[in-house]
Amino acid sequence: MARLVMKFGGTSVANVERIRNVARHVKREVDAGYSVAVVVSAMSGKTNELVGWCKDAAALHDQREYDAVVASGEQVTAGLLAIALQNIGIAARSWQGWQVPILTSDAHGSARIQTIDGVQLLSGFERGEVAVIAGFQGIHQPSGRITTLGRGGSDTSAVAVAAAIEADRCDIYTDVDGVYTTDPRVVPKARRMERISFEEMLEMASLGAKVLQVRSVEVAMVHGVRTYVRSSFDDPADPKSGTLICKEEDIVEAQVVTGIAFSRDEAQITLRGVADKPGVAAAVFVPLAEAGVNVDMIVQVASEDTMTDMTFTVPAAEYERCVAILEKARPAIGYAALTGAKDVAKVSAIGIGMRSHAGVAARAFKALADKGVNIRAITTSEIKFSVLIDAAYTELAVRTLHSLYGLDAA
Amino acid sequence: MARLVMKFGGTSVANVERIRNVARHVKREVDAGYSVAVVVSAMSGKTNELVGWCKDAAALHDQREYDAVVASGEQVTAGLLAIALQNIGIAARSWQGWQVPILTSDAHGSARIQTIDGVQLLSGFERGEVAVIAGFQGIHQPSGRITTLGRGGSDTSAVAVAAAIEADRCDIYTDVDGVYTTDPRVVPKARRMERISFEEMLEMASLGAKVLQVRSVEVAMVHGVRTYVRSSFDDPADPKSGTLICKEEDIVEAQVVTGIAFSRDEAQITLRGVADKPGVAAAVFVPLAEAGVNVDMIVQVASEDTMTDMTFTVPAAEYERCVAILEKARPAIGYAALTGAKDVAKVSAIGIGMRSHAGVAARAFKALADKGVNIRAITTSEIKFSVLIDAAYTELAVRTLHSLYGLDAA
Repeated sequence: MARLVMKFGGTSVANVERIRNVARHVKREVDAGYSVAVVVSAMSGKTNELVGWCKDAAALHDQREYDAVVASGEQVTAGLLAIALQNIGIAARSWQGWQVPILTSDAHGSARIQTIDGVQLLSGFERGEVAVIAGFQGIHQPSGRITTLGRGGSDTSAVAVAAAIEADRCDIYTDVDGVYTTDPRVVPKARRMERISFEEMLEMASLGAKVLQVRSVEVAMVHGVRTYVRSSFDDPADPKSGTLICKEEDIVEAQVVTGIAFSRDEAQITLRGVADKPGVAAAVFVPLAEAGVNVDMIVQVASEDTMTDMTFTVPAAEYERCVAILEKARPAIGYAALTGAKDVAKVSAIGIGMRSHAGVAARAFKALADKGVNIRAITTSEIKFSVLIDAAYTELAVRTLHSLYGLDAA
Repeated sequence: MARLVMKFGGTSVANVERIRNVARHVKREVDAGYSVAVVVSAMSGKTNELVGWCKDAAALHDQREYDAVVASGEQVTAGLLAIALQNIGIAARSWQGWQVPILTSDAHGSARIQTIDGVQLLSGFERGEVAVIAGFQGIHQPSGRITTLGRGGSDTSAVAVAAAIEADRCDIYTDVDGVYTTDPRVVPKARRMERISFEEMLEMASLGAKVLQVRSVEVAMVHGVRTYVRSSFDDPADPKSGTLICKEEDIVEAQVVTGIAFSRDEAQITLRGVADKPGVAAAVFVPLAEAGVNVDMIVQVASEDTMTDMTFTVPAAEYERCVAILEKARPAIGYAALTGAKDVAKVSAIGIGMRSHAGVAARAFKALADKGVNIRAITTSEIKFSVLIDAAYTELAVRTLHSLYGLDAA
């Protein structure tokens, strides 16, 4: 029988009534002939409650104990959904990460899945059982300690389980009905995409679209897991369409630009009067990397013969810390002045069609200039380009690009 | 180093602040040189919440899934206490039942501990670690499913761990400061006992004293685990005395009567005009046993030559169900009439001294008669006797017996 993984997030399992609704979604797929593995998150709010208790117990807490505490949330949902499924006549059993087992690294709090042994799950399928798997968690061996994958890890659990049991598809049920060309709250004319390629989705997720965790898309791309984003709020008897994330070759009509992403959690730092010589970039970025800062959008512009300006972005929450680090490193770097801005935003256009179309970005620069949007920095890659602008122009820029590339709904 | 087990119940770990207080109790014993294993319950209210969700998910729920859900409560407390201990400089790690492992039967929801492998816990002691163990739970093999021991099971977990690691003592921290000669709410002159024998404590617990679970006392008695009941609400730096439950030979001055227990959760059933012949008792009690009813205090009085009256008690909550069963079985039993009463109470006096003193119970019957308390039924055993009386006389009877046997505080 064909195999299906279904994943339900926190709002989809927020209380027992919603868990019973999830059971009806599962029943539909079982009735359609699928062998089903369901991956569940903790009931919404539960993880925050557990994290809060850990923080109250000690500001600096042992991540191994944090994991033991926090993993309990998914365990509860898995058991309750198994009960709800049995109640409507569907054989089911719950699986905790250590029971499957889902083996992970020992990076407690943000562990990476290493291998998933699907043998017991497949035996369950042979007995006609739905496997209800606690997402977000695993076990490290030989320590035997429970691990968690970090926030949003249940998406990754689901895709990895789908890869392990060679599922036909991994359905991610969420509180939106698919992936949109951009955030519909900003652009009312945004359209739900029928399909998007793994590469595009990876860029969309990395660049601020929050519908899927970046890591889950990476795992899906590596293992070729067809991933379907859809709404858990649909009528279980008559669900609507979502967005299929699939291989590029499965997309018949590739568009030049597929979607517009944006992020307001950016801060810009510019170092003026930096010597344009080897080793300077290392002097700037090594201390930031050692402090765990994720640097993005690095741009270097020659301003004088031997001097240059260096601009880059960091997460807005890290801005003050980065400034302190760079001031401390000033003797080693040797810059003339440090300027920065926290009220900036990054707007990006993504599309696999860019590979074969020249001048895609250039059209954007002109359109934005026409609207009076000042571009502070630009970065490009094979299938996307990003511009850094004043945060106040975010919506205007997103709408402008959305129209420019023909993404507005009719 | 000497080993100690400390057990903290739900009210002792009701919130993070109280868990931090528990950590201070543990620190005191570590500082005193003990290798410590701590057994914890779920935060008070949590188990009820989890049980409620299971019931909401399905009235008739799979006990295996119920166990997976409900066991999460103790898991959370164990992790939080490990964090709180580390925060005050005590090395600690949490252990879930399956990690120890604590192997149990597969009677999900009321499993029995079979063996506890103490090897890993002892290795932890050698590393100077406190072991924080989730009580109430275990694992069944080879199924690999989580089990729970039933309500109050954490006491049993603690005593069983103490036996497995050959602890010097098992300290049960609770919301009272020991075992009293009777319920102080009924008899203000009730006294805390310094010591009580396993046998007496087993009777006290069986007969209504709620300070310890009956099964934990059984396990303590079988393995000779010195069990100390004490208060978790004491100042951790200056704790008060509790009650030591120990072998009879460790009690220097055995009293004739040690304590008075009582239970209001009783109902009386009397079958009148039953044939006084073999097989009748079986006709009465087999159907009740098959229905899972715990019958107590069976008394049979010959009223005519070949006829007899049969009186026994059942839990008050089971009364209506028992009457229905007995009416259905009336043709097989052949009784003339069934009478019953729910407003009855059982009052018991317990003491190992009864073995060597004649007439202990007779004094009680006279004292109760003098106060006008009508005795409906009497049962005796080697170290206790019980009387069934009208519930309205419970307090009067308890106080009368408490005074009679010299238990009142000066």
